[in-house]
Amino acid sequence: MGESFTAEQVSAALRSRSAKLVAIVHGETSTGIQQPLAEIADVVHEHGALLLVDSVASLAGVPVPVDGLGIDICYSGSQKCLSSPPGLAPITVGPKADAVLAKRRSKVQSWYLDLTLVRNYWGSDRVYHHTAPITLNFALRESLRLVCEEGLDAVFDRHARMARLLWDGLEDLGLSLMVPEGLRLPTLTTVRVPDGVDDAAVRRQLLNEFNIEIAGGLGAFRGKAWRIGLMGHSARPENVYALLGALEHILGRS
Amino acid sequence: MGESFTAEQVSAALRSRSAKLVAIVHGETSTGIQQPLAEIADVVHEHGALLLVDSVASLAGVPVPVDGLGIDICYSGSQKCLSSPPGLAPITVGPKADAVLAKRRSKVQSWYLDLTLVRNYWGSDRVYHHTAPITLNFALRESLRLVCEEGLDAVFDRHARMARLLWDGLEDLGLSLMVPEGLRLPTLTTVRVPDGVDDAAVRRQLLNEFNIEIAGGLGAFRGKAWRIGLMGHSARPENVYALLGALEHILGRS
Repeated sequence: MGESFTAEQVSAALRSRSAKLVAIVHGETSTGIQQPLAEIADVVHEHGALLLVDSVASLAGVPVPVDGLGIDICYSGSQKCLSSPPGLAPITVGPKADAVLAKRRSKVQSWYLDLTLVRNYWGSDRVYHHTAPITLNFALRESLRLVCEEGLDAVFDRHARMARLLWDGLEDLGLSLMVPEGLRLPTLTTVRVPDGVDDAAVRRQLLNEFNIEIAGGLGAFRGKAWRIGLMGHSARPENVYALLGALEHILGRS
Repeated sequence: MGESFTAEQVSAALRSRSAKLVAIVHGETSTGIQQPLAEIADVVHEHGALLLVDSVASLAGVPVPVDGLGIDICYSGSQKCLSSPPGLAPITVGPKADAVLAKRRSKVQSWYLDLTLVRNYWGSDRVYHHTAPITLNFALRESLRLVCEEGLDAVFDRHARMARLLWDGLEDLGLSLMVPEGLRLPTLTTVRVPDGVDDAAVRRQLLNEFNIEIAGGLGAFRGKAWRIGLMGHSARPENVYALLGALEHILGRS
């Protein structure tokens, strides 16, 4: 966690461990890094391994080329860039991963997300697996409809423009971003907490006085970074300006 | 599945297998049986085992005396007698079961419902476990508020009265109920499909002409039983009369 991986690192790890599957988080919300999926996918597939991608914070925010890169399993969440209520995790399983599921001999120990059972529902038999959370399904469908209405390219462009607006504004305030531009995730930005500034006090003031919630750092970044999400419905100029103005006020940098 | 258990059977099974936990479905929706919880609980606890009860189809329909019987783990579903959208499973863990969780040494293989992680959220640390499906939580709260507004005893009484109305009406049509009265679950009634009657055709006509959905039998009861739910909001006289009238019409028993 907290690092971007180069194709060389992934390749070396695959050689040393003869791994069958590489799992990677596309948009890393603890660090604000966007993993370089294309080059990692090439290396993983050259080694004959499967590629699993967590696109929770990236789907509908930046392109996630599932078919283009031959991602074997990809899942996401309903509540980030799709801006639907939390509670669903859309998942897609490609033919190579499905073949592995079909050949599995040991029993999955949990009923939850037992894909060997769920695939009997996906198939022509439609074997009952569980009661679906139908209200969430309808909400997800509506959120997907809204994405289609705006257009995928327009959605990606909006996230990119809002991120640029935020990044420039933060740097204008003299703050420094933690991730170099090429690896920076548009949907979640990490900023260094300036020396002498109380991380939690600033976040508390943002929430109580301005009704804006940003997150603190996790693990090694605890107290050292702020994490600012710009996802889906919230990725709008009024939100970016509201945050920048509030931060300027709180930090006394006007 | 499909049987009620006597205290003697449970006792014999516990002696022969030195089981640590007995899991039982309180209201069995495949058969329409209400397990005799009180006597089973006594036997289980005499043997020093834990009792886990599935109350998915019984909670808020009939009394589920979790504390009264010392049920160690009890879970339910939001979508049955609570009449909230599906997607949540309320669960309660008593002190004896919690002590077992605390002592567990082997790692739970699934992230889902890993109670060894969830209990860190329940505790004073409130360690983040997962993103909660907040809209469902609000809906469940509202459904619980409605149950309290009506009053628990009144809710149980309504389910009992509606079940009686249904049972009497079905017998007046010459149909026979599958479960003897003492073990009969008020929230789900199983009826024998009369000889010469096409199970699926009747259910199709009920759905298409009368907008009423009842379920077919499962497993050994396939094609031989109908399963009629009267749970929560749906347990009302107008629904019982609508079904009885439609069945009378379809079966030509008027």
